[in-house]
Amino acid sequence: MAPMLPRPDLAQVKAILFDTFGSVVDWRGSLIADLSAWAATRGISGDWAGLVDAWRAAYAPSMDRVRRGELPWTILDDLHRATLERLLAQFGITGLLEADQDHINRGWHRLNPWPDAVAGLTRLRSRYIIGPLSNGNVALLVNMAKRAGLPWDMVCSTELFGHYKPDPETYLGAARILGLQPGEVMMAAAHNNDLHAARRCGLRTAFWPRPTEYGPLQVRDFAADSDWDIVAADIEDMAAQLGL
Amino acid sequence: MAPMLPRPDLAQVKAILFDTFGSVVDWRGSLIADLSAWAATRGISGDWAGLVDAWRAAYAPSMDRVRRGELPWTILDDLHRATLERLLAQFGITGLLEADQDHINRGWHRLNPWPDAVAGLTRLRSRYIIGPLSNGNVALLVNMAKRAGLPWDMVCSTELFGHYKPDPETYLGAARILGLQPGEVMMAAAHNNDLHAARRCGLRTAFWPRPTEYGPLQVRDFAADSDWDIVAADIEDMAAQLGL
Repeated sequence: MAPMLPRPDLAQVKAILFDTFGSVVDWRGSLIADLSAWAATRGISGDWAGLVDAWRAAYAPSMDRVRRGELPWTILDDLHRATLERLLAQFGITGLLEADQDHINRGWHRLNPWPDAVAGLTRLRSRYIIGPLSNGNVALLVNMAKRAGLPWDMVCSTELFGHYKPDPETYLGAARILGLQPGEVMMAAAHNNDLHAARRCGLRTAFWPRPTEYGPLQVRDFAADSDWDIVAADIEDMAAQLGL
Repeated sequence: MAPMLPRPDLAQVKAILFDTFGSVVDWRGSLIADLSAWAATRGISGDWAGLVDAWRAAYAPSMDRVRRGELPWTILDDLHRATLERLLAQFGITGLLEADQDHINRGWHRLNPWPDAVAGLTRLRSRYIIGPLSNGNVALLVNMAKRAGLPWDMVCSTELFGHYKPDPETYLGAARILGLQPGEVMMAAAHNNDLHAARRCGLRTAFWPRPTEYGPLQVRDFAADSDWDIVAADIEDMAAQLGL
């Protein structure tokens, strides 16, 4: 007889999909370090921490323009790039070549995992299909995973559905292409709003906090705000709670 | 200075996409063994080799009905299933439960790699983004890769584009979601027709033969029929030709 799982209520789960920015990778710490080091070698001065924070602040509003239909479907690399051009001017960073702007924009492909992420994902992969379900476009997620060693079984981007999270088409689309019912898929994130949207589509849910994701600007997601199926300290603890 | 690559003409290639059925996995040998063993334990007799050959013979015609618009977009699992029901009747295999038919149909998720595949792919992955570009649906390819240990960076199914190979939307769509130009992508297959279609879209090409893919029924693809960028003995030899 197979050993009893620690969570028989989750026995139906076959795949776990992960929010990526902030939940699996540290976008703020990675980008500030990456861009500061690159700028120093090039002798370009600028408030890179300020720019990174402003860049991320523009993330949800830019996707909302797509979600409301004000913009046609636009991948995240292109939304990031449009925001970047505006912010470089705003922060007085001038004289960059086109290739420099491309390099900065691809900083989102070069994000580092949180310390528990690779080990935790590797444990979860031993029983579950794992992949991102991220608003990052496919190329961004593939390049990020290859560089960071994220051991995904597949790369699921909302680009595949022409909708950004939290639109239901993303959660339901991911379940559909995996050949699974929504209740066989778990959404895992450090963001309560992502999990509320996933639960409304019938997915199971797992939460862990990333209290330093936004640095001193963090105002939310310090703790679970609902009875998510799993509430963990991090991804390694999530694996432990599932007996892995 | 970086060492000279053995093939400077291929220096632009960043991703290699693989045909899967027949090129990476041995569908015929795997399915005949899998279904024969399963049927023996269940006491179900039948000409499984004949059924598998007939099943595969229906593969291209069933996709062509989708490609010509006679059927709406239908994933390969569902095309396989419709063919299976017809063939079970034709081969006089009766008394199967719905769950038995599901199990047989998912035999396509349980295919074994050719002996050189995992080692060759692992070598290629050290420099290139690698993934399938297969007419298998996402769930089929993800389940196959997890079971067989295929070390894909991402899983690219023609399902993502609503078109079956050799439609150009599949090759161009794969390059697009990888953020690459067609000439930065190489299509790799044991089937000349797949490579002709990929080359017409601007992709680079690699071929190796699988002369036993169709068993005694094999009539083509014993050798390259054009000057593909790489002509190899198998996937390990392809890696060697690229200096890996």
